[in-house]
Amino acid sequence: MKAYKAMTREELEELKKELEKVYEDVKGKGLSLNMARGKPSTEQLDLTKDMLDVLDSKADLFTEDGIDTRNYGELTGIREAKVLIADLMEVDPDEVIVFGNGSLSIMYDTVAGSMSFGVNGMTPWNKLEKVKFLCPVPGYDRHFAITERFGIEMINIPLTEDGPDMDMVRDYVENDEAVKGIWCVPKYSNPTGTTYSDETVRAFAALKPKADDFRIYWDNAYAVHDLYEDDKDVLLNIMDECKKQGREDMVYQFVSTSKITFAGAGIAAVISSKANLEWYRQNMTIRTIGYDKVNQLRHVRYFKNADGIRNKMKDHARILAPKFKAVLDCFEKELDGLEIGTYTRPKGGYFISFMALEGCAGKIVAKCKEAGMVTTGAGATYPYKKDPKDSNIRIAPSYPTLEDMKEAASLFCLCVKLVSIEKVLEDK
Amino acid sequence: MKAYKAMTREELEELKKELEKVYEDVKGKGLSLNMARGKPSTEQLDLTKDMLDVLDSKADLFTEDGIDTRNYGELTGIREAKVLIADLMEVDPDEVIVFGNGSLSIMYDTVAGSMSFGVNGMTPWNKLEKVKFLCPVPGYDRHFAITERFGIEMINIPLTEDGPDMDMVRDYVENDEAVKGIWCVPKYSNPTGTTYSDETVRAFAALKPKADDFRIYWDNAYAVHDLYEDDKDVLLNIMDECKKQGREDMVYQFVSTSKITFAGAGIAAVISSKANLEWYRQNMTIRTIGYDKVNQLRHVRYFKNADGIRNKMKDHARILAPKFKAVLDCFEKELDGLEIGTYTRPKGGYFISFMALEGCAGKIVAKCKEAGMVTTGAGATYPYKKDPKDSNIRIAPSYPTLEDMKEAASLFCLCVKLVSIEKVLEDK
Repeated sequence: MKAYKAMTREELEELKKELEKVYEDVKGKGLSLNMARGKPSTEQLDLTKDMLDVLDSKADLFTEDGIDTRNYGELTGIREAKVLIADLMEVDPDEVIVFGNGSLSIMYDTVAGSMSFGVNGMTPWNKLEKVKFLCPVPGYDRHFAITERFGIEMINIPLTEDGPDMDMVRDYVENDEAVKGIWCVPKYSNPTGTTYSDETVRAFAALKPKADDFRIYWDNAYAVHDLYEDDKDVLLNIMDECKKQGREDMVYQFVSTSKITFAGAGIAAVISSKANLEWYRQNMTIRTIGYDKVNQLRHVRYFKNADGIRNKMKDHARILAPKFKAVLDCFEKELDGLEIGTYTRPKGGYFISFMALEGCAGKIVAKCKEAGMVTTGAGATYPYKKDPKDSNIRIAPSYPTLEDMKEAASLFCLCVKLVSIEKVLEDK
Repeated sequence: MKAYKAMTREELEELKKELEKVYEDVKGKGLSLNMARGKPSTEQLDLTKDMLDVLDSKADLFTEDGIDTRNYGELTGIREAKVLIADLMEVDPDEVIVFGNGSLSIMYDTVAGSMSFGVNGMTPWNKLEKVKFLCPVPGYDRHFAITERFGIEMINIPLTEDGPDMDMVRDYVENDEAVKGIWCVPKYSNPTGTTYSDETVRAFAALKPKADDFRIYWDNAYAVHDLYEDDKDVLLNIMDECKKQGREDMVYQFVSTSKITFAGAGIAAVISSKANLEWYRQNMTIRTIGYDKVNQLRHVRYFKNADGIRNKMKDHARILAPKFKAVLDCFEKELDGLEIGTYTRPKGGYFISFMALEGCAGKIVAKCKEAGMVTTGAGATYPYKKDPKDSNIRIAPSYPTLEDMKEAASLFCLCVKLVSIEKVLEDK
């Protein structure tokens, strides 16, 4: 394969004509493909459908300590659900609060609570002149939407192969009191698939924040979401590292079963120090009498222990891995050597990240759309939806069928080529 | 029965000695009774235990319009859940958003959203000098806790037999721009059991608020929670009345199945105008990808329609009514004629309200506690936990067994008598 920029203007024009013809043909097919959101497929959701059988009208709905899960109460979650999460995440059950479905709302409530009431009794952020969050980029659009909604200034931090640029993080966190948080997806990061190196995790734990109410928002969304049994990333336990530094109040860790059981009906949890959890409890007790404990019990009875979850993740991997492979095989075949973009090869998580030539992402997404394929919007992976280089595109292979995914990947490559030719021609 | 104040000092001293002996005997029993919270009993929770059978691993988990309830999405709830709630509450399904378990968190998020972002694009309340809420008293402690948490000034409004004193409400709402809301439990009010009269509901709808962002928080928690099939209170439909006045944006109505199915695992909803619901949607979309739709579907499949719910409520009444009767029979037998307190005789809901002689509520509660019985804290039914007359005590007959309830009522009357004798003696 010859790099586009090594081709003559005439060669490029010729190629462009050919590809445009192919594109018109594809458009004629009236496709309807969606690579936009990290949604589990129906096949994946069916993996845990039998979870609905464990609690029926004959079931004992009381917890081990005699709590009726159907009734009010148990604000911080039932004990055995804490044990399940603690077992999985290698923390103490007393460091866990179990909520309802979805960890996003826990993160939202954490920011909202900090804005209105302050962190652990400190000044409410809405009384401060300025609050800033560090945002490793590319990152998760819904994180950025929360901080944007509350008027928190977001600062881009480049994500390297080892995680966020820790020199830059340290510089901000240790010198700017307005910096109150950093959004992290430390394992199989959304959208790059990056797992933070041990050195990065240790560097996080070693931070000496200027602001006492600085917190690391450790969204461990893909903690057990490996694609390959024999080739997994391993993330260092941030709680352990923070404890070594005597800074266990510095991190909130978020997890959920949204991509383990049901995306819309899982259970979510926060893991943090006892002091931090007491602050959560004080905020929660005004907002709710308790989360859905029946569903917590359903999860516990179904999985029994962390191994139950880990085993189920192997079934997810069997469905997901071929879809990732289909995309990567296509990219390799169609794009390698053309020098018109790079892409990640994640070992887990839900996304592949494509970095197009500068200024091309928006046009590629538009071209895909014109031919009937929806991808995540260009810019979505950056704060304020502004990708400074207009380069990153997030690809979510999970939801479509394998066949659709192959077709989608192929169309994507075609659009990348077409837009890149124009870019290379312009630059000539 | 002779009124205490008509008795001589000697008669009272004599009676006191007798009752003190009885009290010491009761204390010796080491009772453990709880009349504190409006929790359904296990027997009630068992009424809908078979709801757990309607969705099993063989069930179709898709909605009528083809949504997989297990997956992400459908932020405002599944269509058929909206239809179920709309059917029950006699509104349009487009006027309903269905959430997760518990309406309290919807109310909290409503206040929180108004504080941070303003109502329908108006000035965020946290940018205002002062925000006030009207609080019909006695009322629901958890309502008051929300507004207190956000530093909203609460103003007591006396609750009459017809609902809140509407002259006072009108005066505040129509003249004070800082008044942004009023907490209402319009049917079988917590704790008095009062149902607002048609005139009161119409007066609410006819309000011409000084503040455009004034809203009525219509917590219709006991909408179908009648105790007696042949003697129900009927509440006028506030949405209909507001529409007649062209003020349908003025009310948020909250409902849930917490006291219909499972207290901790029901579904909750807000009913409001389309403009207001669009504001909810904008706030929700940052906080969550969607609530638990599997549980929404479970409720719909179980009840099928509003009649399904209404029929189930008859079973609840069969369990609850005897407990209310036990308390009221005891009060009648033990207290009527003594002129040491009044009590309500609600036709539904979860509470009986006792009004002790001024200055006696705290002492009665303490005396009950000393003998092993927990009641709702004195003052809890007032903003800032301050009952100006220290008179109201909320009694929750639902949770204990009928036998325990009888014992509890009897002990309560004994404590009322003892504390009242002292009060009457002091006043002599």
